[in-house]
Amino acid sequence: MIIALDGMGGDFAPQEPVKGAVEAVKEYGVSIILTGPKEVLEEELKKYEYDPEKIEILDAREVITLNESPVLGIRRKKDSSLRRAMDLVKEGKADAVVSAGSTGAILAGGLLVIGRIKGVDRAALAALMPGKNGPFMVIDLGANAEVKPSNLVEFAKMGTAYFESLKGIKNPKVGLINIGGEEEKGNELTKAAYQLLKAEEGIHFVGNVEPREITDGDVEILVCDGFTGNVVLKMYEGVVKNLMSMIKGAMMSTTRGKIGGALVKPSLKEFMRKNDYKEEGGASLLGVDGIVIKAHGTSDARAFKNAIRQAKNFYDRDYLEKFKGNLK
Amino acid sequence: MIIALDGMGGDFAPQEPVKGAVEAVKEYGVSIILTGPKEVLEEELKKYEYDPEKIEILDAREVITLNESPVLGIRRKKDSSLRRAMDLVKEGKADAVVSAGSTGAILAGGLLVIGRIKGVDRAALAALMPGKNGPFMVIDLGANAEVKPSNLVEFAKMGTAYFESLKGIKNPKVGLINIGGEEEKGNELTKAAYQLLKAEEGIHFVGNVEPREITDGDVEILVCDGFTGNVVLKMYEGVVKNLMSMIKGAMMSTTRGKIGGALVKPSLKEFMRKNDYKEEGGASLLGVDGIVIKAHGTSDARAFKNAIRQAKNFYDRDYLEKFKGNLK
Repeated sequence: MIIALDGMGGDFAPQEPVKGAVEAVKEYGVSIILTGPKEVLEEELKKYEYDPEKIEILDAREVITLNESPVLGIRRKKDSSLRRAMDLVKEGKADAVVSAGSTGAILAGGLLVIGRIKGVDRAALAALMPGKNGPFMVIDLGANAEVKPSNLVEFAKMGTAYFESLKGIKNPKVGLINIGGEEEKGNELTKAAYQLLKAEEGIHFVGNVEPREITDGDVEILVCDGFTGNVVLKMYEGVVKNLMSMIKGAMMSTTRGKIGGALVKPSLKEFMRKNDYKEEGGASLLGVDGIVIKAHGTSDARAFKNAIRQAKNFYDRDYLEKFKGNLK
Repeated sequence: MIIALDGMGGDFAPQEPVKGAVEAVKEYGVSIILTGPKEVLEEELKKYEYDPEKIEILDAREVITLNESPVLGIRRKKDSSLRRAMDLVKEGKADAVVSAGSTGAILAGGLLVIGRIKGVDRAALAALMPGKNGPFMVIDLGANAEVKPSNLVEFAKMGTAYFESLKGIKNPKVGLINIGGEEEKGNELTKAAYQLLKAEEGIHFVGNVEPREITDGDVEILVCDGFTGNVVLKMYEGVVKNLMSMIKGAMMSTTRGKIGGALVKPSLKEFMRKNDYKEEGGASLLGVDGIVIKAHGTSDARAFKNAIRQAKNFYDRDYLEKFKGNLK
């Protein structure tokens, strides 16, 4: 399997994507094409020992910045590291793209360069997150600020194919993120989507899921518009971050708490490690006719390595074919 | 000050509202009219010593259940405990309503019985929540699943009046909950609302606030549609609940962690107490021409007492006049 890795995407490029590539090659046996300025990437690669047959550089002289329109960036900067990586998949020279570039640019690249799967109206961003009783997936995390009710059915099918092919879970549960448990609750979108989801065969729709229950992890797939999904994702991140810091502060305010804090530290560290998004890899752009993984902007080498593993899983478990089958 | 307290609202009625009323009378010197079946409330009141001049019962034989339409419930069940309480405010016989009944019924009661303030298009639910650096308020928490951009400006004014009158904070910061920091980010609602908020005088608009930063508590007032606000509120509750339980589980998995856990327990308990929604009272229905406090459905006596204190604050600090002034 060949992975096109955007060597210039993310806050810590090119160091971390390059290091992640070297580690992934060793660990997973994949081949990687790194895109970016040749001399910069070569300089980084020199730091490591690796099988030169497994890592190749594709020169790309431009970078799409956060300040420009993602669509124009992808269209005009044909020699950017992200566009080059997308082209590799489009041309069949690579099997997946991994990038920690901006969500907007990756979305634009997926849609404009690789293109949607025939029959799919909207592509969507999805990611697994740690829940109390197991991981769960929210679709869409922000690719579509506005959607039609029927798009949520598409998202449910994408998620179902994901759990069936990648996790080996048959008939994963699908929930609709809503602000009430009853069928008639919610806004116009969720009310209409509820009826469509209920009528849809081939998915295991369990009804509305209130945000209080999302992180229980009892429902595998949670569908919503991209605005709501982004709120869910970022609330989760923000509350965990602040709560951990507030708990630390509370413990440190007494001597007894300080001693106890020192004792529980290893457990908490292990807990945070297990529940770290970096372990899961990145978000997947589902609905496009190729494997596109968006790693977190702050990804380190480990996160890149895990995003590459994730791309490999999509490939090995034949996600695309599974989803195309579910569409019919 | 006279408070109309729905004696039959909430999961633990009539015991907890009655107990909360007795405590509030002692602590805050308010007078309370309890609404509900006379003999039931009298039986409860018998358990306590209290000043009989300060607590009165208004007989009400009906209860609006969770299974009926809130609007029909309020309209038809004229002898329900909630409707009676709302009537008392409408007729000027009480200065505020406190109820732990269903959000829908309280909203319907506020709108249909008490009515909106002249010039206000939408009433909204708001509540203070604990943030890392201070409390923050989200408006709307779920009264309006769909809103117009101009409604968010109204919400900003309600919140500003709240912080100015109740908290004595001049020019509190107003943020728009959005899925990106930049002006042009978001869905159609937030893009249009951003421009209106920016142009509005008399509020201190600081731009978009991403959900990751909401619980920092650096921005006092966060405006959004009721669907989004409800997602924010319930994600916050759910993540805190699950995270605390997951952290506990992680600590209990090793002997060292168990010992440390025992030591940090008092600090964590104190932390949870300080950050308990029950301390703040309830959610306020803003924009109606009266003081309406919705206590949490699971309220105990302490939560009712705090909701009554909150109603008293609205009254003492002249919130309604302040907000009407800001409207002009």
